Amino acid sequence: MREQADLPDHPRASGRRAPGVSVQASPLDLAQALLRCPSVTPEEGGALALLDRVLTEAGFSVARPVFSEPGTPDVENLYARIGSGGPCLLFAGHTDVVPPGDAAAWRSGPFDGAMADGILYGRGAVDMKGGIACMLAAALRFLQARGPNFSGSIAFLVTGDEEGPAVNGTVKLLDWAKARGERFDHCLLGEPTNPSTLGEMIKIGRRGSLTGKLTVHGRQGHVAYPHRAENPIPGMLRLASALAADPLDGGTAHFDASNLEFTTIDVGNKATNVIPADARAVFNIRFNEGWDAETLGAEIRRRLDAAAGNAVRYTLDLAPSNSPAFLTRPDAFVDLVSDAIAAETGLRPTLSTTGGTSDARFIKDACPVIEFGLVGETMHQVDECVPVADLERLTAIYVRMLDAYFPTGA
Amino acid sequence: MREQADLPDHPRASGRRAPGVSVQASPLDLAQALLRCPSVTPEEGGALALLDRVLTEAGFSVARPVFSEPGTPDVENLYARIGSGGPCLLFAGHTDVVPPGDAAAWRSGPFDGAMADGILYGRGAVDMKGGIACMLAAALRFLQARGPNFSGSIAFLVTGDEEGPAVNGTVKLLDWAKARGERFDHCLLGEPTNPSTLGEMIKIGRRGSLTGKLTVHGRQGHVAYPHRAENPIPGMLRLASALAADPLDGGTAHFDASNLEFTTIDVGNKATNVIPADARAVFNIRFNEGWDAETLGAEIRRRLDAAAGNAVRYTLDLAPSNSPAFLTRPDAFVDLVSDAIAAETGLRPTLSTTGGTSDARFIKDACPVIEFGLVGETMHQVDECVPVADLERLTAIYVRMLDAYFPTGA
Repeated sequence: MREQADLPDHPRASGRRAPGVSVQASPLDLAQALLRCPSVTPEEGGALALLDRVLTEAGFSVARPVFSEPGTPDVENLYARIGSGGPCLLFAGHTDVVPPGDAAAWRSGPFDGAMADGILYGRGAVDMKGGIACMLAAALRFLQARGPNFSGSIAFLVTGDEEGPAVNGTVKLLDWAKARGERFDHCLLGEPTNPSTLGEMIKIGRRGSLTGKLTVHGRQGHVAYPHRAENPIPGMLRLASALAADPLDGGTAHFDASNLEFTTIDVGNKATNVIPADARAVFNIRFNEGWDAETLGAEIRRRLDAAAGNAVRYTLDLAPSNSPAFLTRPDAFVDLVSDAIAAETGLRPTLSTTGGTSDARFIKDACPVIEFGLVGETMHQVDECVPVADLERLTAIYVRMLDAYFPTGA
Repeated sequence: MREQADLPDHPRASGRRAPGVSVQASPLDLAQALLRCPSVTPEEGGALALLDRVLTEAGFSVARPVFSEPGTPDVENLYARIGSGGPCLLFAGHTDVVPPGDAAAWRSGPFDGAMADGILYGRGAVDMKGGIACMLAAALRFLQARGPNFSGSIAFLVTGDEEGPAVNGTVKLLDWAKARGERFDHCLLGEPTNPSTLGEMIKIGRRGSLTGKLTVHGRQGHVAYPHRAENPIPGMLRLASALAADPLDGGTAHFDASNLEFTTIDVGNKATNVIPADARAVFNIRFNEGWDAETLGAEIRRRLDAAAGNAVRYTLDLAPSNSPAFLTRPDAFVDLVSDAIAAETGLRPTLSTTGGTSDARFIKDACPVIEFGLVGETMHQVDECVPVADLERLTAIYVRMLDAYFPTGA
């Protein structure tokens, strides 16, 4: 880990007024400017430099640590804070995006930030440059309105390694911040959490993820002489079937049932008259807070051993998992965000734990974290897009949240 | 199909005497000379030219048709006959060999035909240049001994495409011979039929072979959202298990039970967070004479449909099979060969139908065919070899067989 910049002393929120933030407080302008930065993971593409400029101008102290590790690309990150007192509300997110795929298939260039009929198009429109733009616009509007009159801190933790290996991003950035004495009270991660309508879903937790590689060993031979060989495929059928036969659990108060999916089975034998030596399978389990990697590993081995008996020889490799399940139990902060959403959209959001993993799995060790952002329907797809109305509405929700988090009487 | 040579008129067996065959009547000399021809399938390597020379010298009329077909290599073959009357005994075999593998792993060059301690080493020593050498030596000895005094014909049908695709070999050579009015009463195919001791096993039939390709169709998606995808792997586990669950039959009087082996299952999905679209498996069935490709195909579909119900979508491709099961029921000819073996070795051979397929599956349409040759233990392996004693003894068995087949009183 090497660092490009150390964090300067925090300017006191009450000591300065953010100068000239009126233009940048437009989430559309900010989103469009971010979309035009080709920050395909792990490229910075100018996106963090843009945030740096706007945040600095608004009075934040900004650091841009770069982290590296052998075997992974160097990644730029950004940390910014305004205010030095508590409570500290952390906005978290990422500016890197997944590749655009076939650029020719897009209605306009994936990095053009083009508008059509009130909709903004581009890779990252909802995942999550649009969300970053709304956070930023909300913070600027809040500072414009409240100036020195708020007691507490607002921080931004933005990585360029969320869509990549997630090694030189949020994990190291949190360590870096912790080592500098940065403390957070709550975090709002701006991932696109709504399935189809803005306001319908907050994520208060995420399932964990564990990947296993199962190999069944046999002995190669000719199909006409099966007694001289040992076909690993029937053993694989037996073990794989046994592993998936019974549900892992019935779900919990906040989580769906844990789920196992086989993602591949491979033998790679091209000769139709040869019994192969080995068969390999890979499975992935998304598990709820009733399990951790250790208890789940023990259950997998129990099931495999019971099915294998003395008849099947197998090897199991469980990949070390950095994706534990986590849950932020509903509390006053969750209520505060829900109320802000309800006031702006008329919808009372579902508190969900569904879907994939996110950087919240790392942030939860620093402070309670929930996720709320745009509508995820077009994420990772061609013609990823966001209605301008959603950008404005999400910004308004975040402003309400800031207003409630830092009440004027405080 | 094109032909290099047409078959000349048969010299009458009684009309000539094979000149100067004494040297070539040594099975060791002949085997050694054949092993030194690098006839890795489909290369002729000089092996058929050698047979041509020896057979012509012995008084046979010899033809060397070359067959070709788009997509397969041209292959040289040999047909020879002495005598024009009946009965006609056909010796059948092949001079092509499987590749030697790592030549450096051999104790001597795989095409050196080196001797050590009374054992002859080389690719094809038992499969089946050694067998060809014994057939040839036996025919020469028989002709030397009996000269014009035998009534009937001896033919040789030797292909260079047994270890390859078997397209431009025995099948076309039989058609070619049939079109020229060649008729056979019995055939002895010289494949290595003995598991460990010369004389212990005649093959009187072979199981059929049928290969099927099973594809289970799903719908790709993210492992975190399994309800939006359709994983084909559980369907594959169910169908493959159902296909192999019950034996196809319990065997017949002359055959083992039919047997199904899965040879591969492949998905090829490298992403551990992606549910794949399709899963593919290949299986091969070795079946007895209770089945043919049609009845077996119907049974496979019945099992798959029962397991699939409406829940699993699958496609089944059954490769067109040119490997039917066949059985030459024990009769006077089988007895004659068994008696020759018993007289020479003291062993009464088992009449077996085990093992892989052979060109006998094609010859059985021309005349009754059985197989008897050397000990197969080292076939297709590094240091393939044959004891010289076995070459001499097999030659003696074949001579006894010829003597009994063409009794002097006839």
